[in-house]
Amino acid sequence: MNTTFTLLEQINDTASVRALSKEQLSQLSTELRDFILQSVSQTGGHLSSNLGTVELTVALHHVFNTPDDKIIWDVGHQSYGHKILTGRRERMATLRQFGGLSGFPKRSESVYDAFGTAHSSTSISAALGMAVAARHLNLPNRQHIAVIGDGALTGGMAFEAMNNAGVTEGINLLVILNDNDMSISPPVGALNRYLAKLLSGDFVNTARERLKKILKVAPPMLEFARRFEEHAKGMVVPATMFEEFGFNYIGPIDGHDLDSLIPTLENLKNRGGVQFLHVVTRKGQGYKLAEDDPIMYHGPSTFNPSEGIVASNVPKKLTFTQVFGDWICDMAAADARLVAITPAMREGSGLVEFEAKYPTRYFDVGIAEQHAATFAAGLACDGLKPVLVIYSTFLQRAYDQVIHDIALQNLDVTFAIDRAGLVGADGATHAGAYDIAYLRCVPNVAIATPSDELEARGLLTAAYQHNGAAAVRYPRGSGVGAEVSSDLTPLPFGKAHVVRQGQKVAILAFGPLLHMARPAADEVGAALVDMRWVKPLDEALLIELAKTHTHFITIEDSSVAGGAGSAVSEWFAAHGLNPHLLHLGLPDQFIDHGDVATLLAQHDLSVEAVASKVRQFVA
Amino acid sequence: MNTTFTLLEQINDTASVRALSKEQLSQLSTELRDFILQSVSQTGGHLSSNLGTVELTVALHHVFNTPDDKIIWDVGHQSYGHKILTGRRERMATLRQFGGLSGFPKRSESVYDAFGTAHSSTSISAALGMAVAARHLNLPNRQHIAVIGDGALTGGMAFEAMNNAGVTEGINLLVILNDNDMSISPPVGALNRYLAKLLSGDFVNTARERLKKILKVAPPMLEFARRFEEHAKGMVVPATMFEEFGFNYIGPIDGHDLDSLIPTLENLKNRGGVQFLHVVTRKGQGYKLAEDDPIMYHGPSTFNPSEGIVASNVPKKLTFTQVFGDWICDMAAADARLVAITPAMREGSGLVEFEAKYPTRYFDVGIAEQHAATFAAGLACDGLKPVLVIYSTFLQRAYDQVIHDIALQNLDVTFAIDRAGLVGADGATHAGAYDIAYLRCVPNVAIATPSDELEARGLLTAAYQHNGAAAVRYPRGSGVGAEVSSDLTPLPFGKAHVVRQGQKVAILAFGPLLHMARPAADEVGAALVDMRWVKPLDEALLIELAKTHTHFITIEDSSVAGGAGSAVSEWFAAHGLNPHLLHLGLPDQFIDHGDVATLLAQHDLSVEAVASKVRQFVA
Repeated sequence: MNTTFTLLEQINDTASVRALSKEQLSQLSTELRDFILQSVSQTGGHLSSNLGTVELTVALHHVFNTPDDKIIWDVGHQSYGHKILTGRRERMATLRQFGGLSGFPKRSESVYDAFGTAHSSTSISAALGMAVAARHLNLPNRQHIAVIGDGALTGGMAFEAMNNAGVTEGINLLVILNDNDMSISPPVGALNRYLAKLLSGDFVNTARERLKKILKVAPPMLEFARRFEEHAKGMVVPATMFEEFGFNYIGPIDGHDLDSLIPTLENLKNRGGVQFLHVVTRKGQGYKLAEDDPIMYHGPSTFNPSEGIVASNVPKKLTFTQVFGDWICDMAAADARLVAITPAMREGSGLVEFEAKYPTRYFDVGIAEQHAATFAAGLACDGLKPVLVIYSTFLQRAYDQVIHDIALQNLDVTFAIDRAGLVGADGATHAGAYDIAYLRCVPNVAIATPSDELEARGLLTAAYQHNGAAAVRYPRGSGVGAEVSSDLTPLPFGKAHVVRQGQKVAILAFGPLLHMARPAADEVGAALVDMRWVKPLDEALLIELAKTHTHFITIEDSSVAGGAGSAVSEWFAAHGLNPHLLHLGLPDQFIDHGDVATLLAQHDLSVEAVASKVRQFVA
Repeated sequence: MNTTFTLLEQINDTASVRALSKEQLSQLSTELRDFILQSVSQTGGHLSSNLGTVELTVALHHVFNTPDDKIIWDVGHQSYGHKILTGRRERMATLRQFGGLSGFPKRSESVYDAFGTAHSSTSISAALGMAVAARHLNLPNRQHIAVIGDGALTGGMAFEAMNNAGVTEGINLLVILNDNDMSISPPVGALNRYLAKLLSGDFVNTARERLKKILKVAPPMLEFARRFEEHAKGMVVPATMFEEFGFNYIGPIDGHDLDSLIPTLENLKNRGGVQFLHVVTRKGQGYKLAEDDPIMYHGPSTFNPSEGIVASNVPKKLTFTQVFGDWICDMAAADARLVAITPAMREGSGLVEFEAKYPTRYFDVGIAEQHAATFAAGLACDGLKPVLVIYSTFLQRAYDQVIHDIALQNLDVTFAIDRAGLVGADGATHAGAYDIAYLRCVPNVAIATPSDELEARGLLTAAYQHNGAAAVRYPRGSGVGAEVSSDLTPLPFGKAHVVRQGQKVAILAFGPLLHMARPAADEVGAALVDMRWVKPLDEALLIELAKTHTHFITIEDSSVAGGAGSAVSEWFAAHGLNPHLLHLGLPDQFIDHGDVATLLAQHDLSVEAVASKVRQFVA
């Protein structure tokens, strides 16, 4: 591996990439790959995907006139090379850290980041919008490129966009399918199988077989056909699905071969119209360990590139994800009706062991949150008990299905909502800040907020046993480290837990910030309640508390706007009560990436800040 | 047209449909069609779609063992025939009325309604869920049928479902594409063009042309090919897109011909696996007026079948939709940057005139709400000013895109949200009850709630001129009938309007229920404020009011949970104030179809009930 980057260090904009010779571009690719490996190994971040798109990134910036031409990186976890070539090389050491570079393209970070991404499958829609704008603004030469992976292509909105784009006239739109045969989890679905067929040549072979069958009807034709085969091998290429969508399909070509990439892109640039280029890359390309295990190297923490990722011997606290992963295996053993659904997030959601143990009860539906929710509804119609395992931020994609297909029909679906609250390095795009607000307005949906790991397990059981839609939201990473049993006893539905009795003042905590509020409660002698459930609220307890307390503080790792605190204030109003209220939680603004504790503290969510707020409020 | 229904009146379950002879089935179809026409002409409701699926409905219940076999009607506005044949004939007179039959399939209404629908494109996901459940529960003979229109097929989640279904083993799943070449608005998109190609035979012809081209390379082959054509016409059938998705594709067949439908369905029933049947129907079939203008007859009010829909001479109040439709034409004339986007709702959203006047600035993207929002974001990146025109209930489909693509990037998109609040005959599936709650927790999104038509216009201008995401939500139908000017002066951003000064008590109204609260305000001498904006709240006014008022009532046509009222209570808490609060609005439950005033009154939202609540609160 290089540790000097002679050529790369001269590249501070894309004009310099465009000026390079073929040989230099090849050298640049080598240096860029080494730089990415070195940089990510020191900061953590996405690795496999970025190693896989080195040549494509170099070729795009060489051929296209960026930033005037617009490149949109779908999901965006493959944009490090792009960042490095567009003036952000030296800031890569700050990647995904507080105040540093974002791990995703971001419009406010660089003029080269044409569109912010992070959630999957948005790129074609955004590129189409820009392409139509260019037509409107009479910019006929501007190019618009969406780079989308085969995983992201299964997201329904990518199809919605292709359906629209394929009939749009007078635009320049190039969709580049970066086909690396995987999303974060292994690939699933018919589309993936179709792409594999395109790659293997089977698509062409099948067409040839059809031709032969027909020719057999006329025997003399068959002889000609045999001879003809020698001349016309590979010529019987039927239209691909993408051509049926109105795109001009080109490919597949080798995404690591600049000699294929550059002339093809130049050709496409000059053609205009609606083009679809199928590029084949390998995740982790050029770093053997990542090539062999692209999932492990998808988003590693820091590691030594020469020895690779080493399992740590330091015992770590269980994460909430692991608690969930253990719980679902135990519950599945106890209840044959349990089935689990993930939209392409097996690893991140803690379902690896479940899949191994219960392969027929495990459903990875692809990057398809909408379908995942309605599929769960269908399963529930027959008395199965589906658990939809999903990140808070991605449940936003299935919002209508939660309302229309699950809650409205009062179907028994359990939501295991991971990554609730702030998520750290992934930043604002992945924040699980809105789920309480957007779920609690939906009738029939129960919502639980465990304060620690043990409680997460008890609330998962309670939500699962509840005959109806119920969500348990838990944060990324670990909590206070409460020891988790193997018990499957549910915590009582809709019941809070009084942690500490108090006088006059009561702190009602929803979720893990309970622990942050404890010193404040001790200091002012406040009652401290682990509310556990946002919906239903523990009304009996609230009635009791209201008799003897005049000041109520709510605290949650969720947006104050419409959050659990506002549920409490609505309850008071509905009961003709007007105590003094203070709502602590996430503010009405998008919060960038960084260490969660730092970010929370920045918004008055630290032990000290909470104590200070409480003191002020009580005074 | 029949007015006696000899055979139909004997049909009270589907076992009797299965027992009928071929001749009887044909008679049944005729009677069913006449019954639908007569019934819908007396109640209003969906007509064209139901006339188009008469034979398909009869054939499905004849061939399949319903209700054990599951039929899922996508969107469900074509399910009247199904309702009539499944024991609900006599209740059709109550259709879409308070306490009567729903206009959509509904699980709680009949065991034959396997899955509730109303929003588009959910059927394949739900049917797949049930098919997998059958596998799990060892019901190998149970059949699962999703009937989906060509419009609904463009919704991304239909593709997500096909991608998943096509690789699922050991299930019985039949997707029936009801291809009638239209959704509510005229068809758009590449998929529609593709289906037309399948129908016209061009798909086959193109394949033949390709073959000829190849054969031209070898001239003697060409001569054989010419002769061969005579024998093999139509045999070169390449795989359709649906086969690429792993389905077995059959069709197209005539969906009005029982002699095609019944044997084909019987054949498919016995085959099992994952099947795709392409059926061609005509919307409005059998009623000439509806055949000629299926859009006008999509969802008519009552009419006389023998004379058809007659334009009323009685001058009607403008609807909010019409106010919007006029506004957008005027604003487009004043600002060349304005473009409008609809997800397949040209008529319902008031965009007919805009499209006629500004065809190049009008974008019907198909049933594709997710794409619509991100496409708008892309347009906004270049300084265009997109107006996304969408029903409140359908904006739920684009929730993640609103957060992740528009609000997070602070892009300048205006949302014209129609059908906010209760919607009447369409019922719970279409309620626009959640938008305030799910939007106000999203940073950077402004939300306006006009109380009447004139204000709607002024707030649309204000939202449009606001440089950022801003939504104006307005109800279905008309309001109090405020005269609308042609003015394009914006109402002040974030500013409320004091309708009536008062003492001690203040009523803060968000939206049209303002007028319902006026008598109460007069009665108790309360201040009455037309808040106009949920976000930002008019803080200066609240500060003033808080000085002299101790009791605050909020009223809105939106869920109290997380709604505008809770925004007010959060504001008080954030300012250390604890006045007495009463929140009036929609309760935490799904509200069925019926007349809006009746439904509101049922939930204490009538002039009398509000006055009584206020009286009680103040006492």
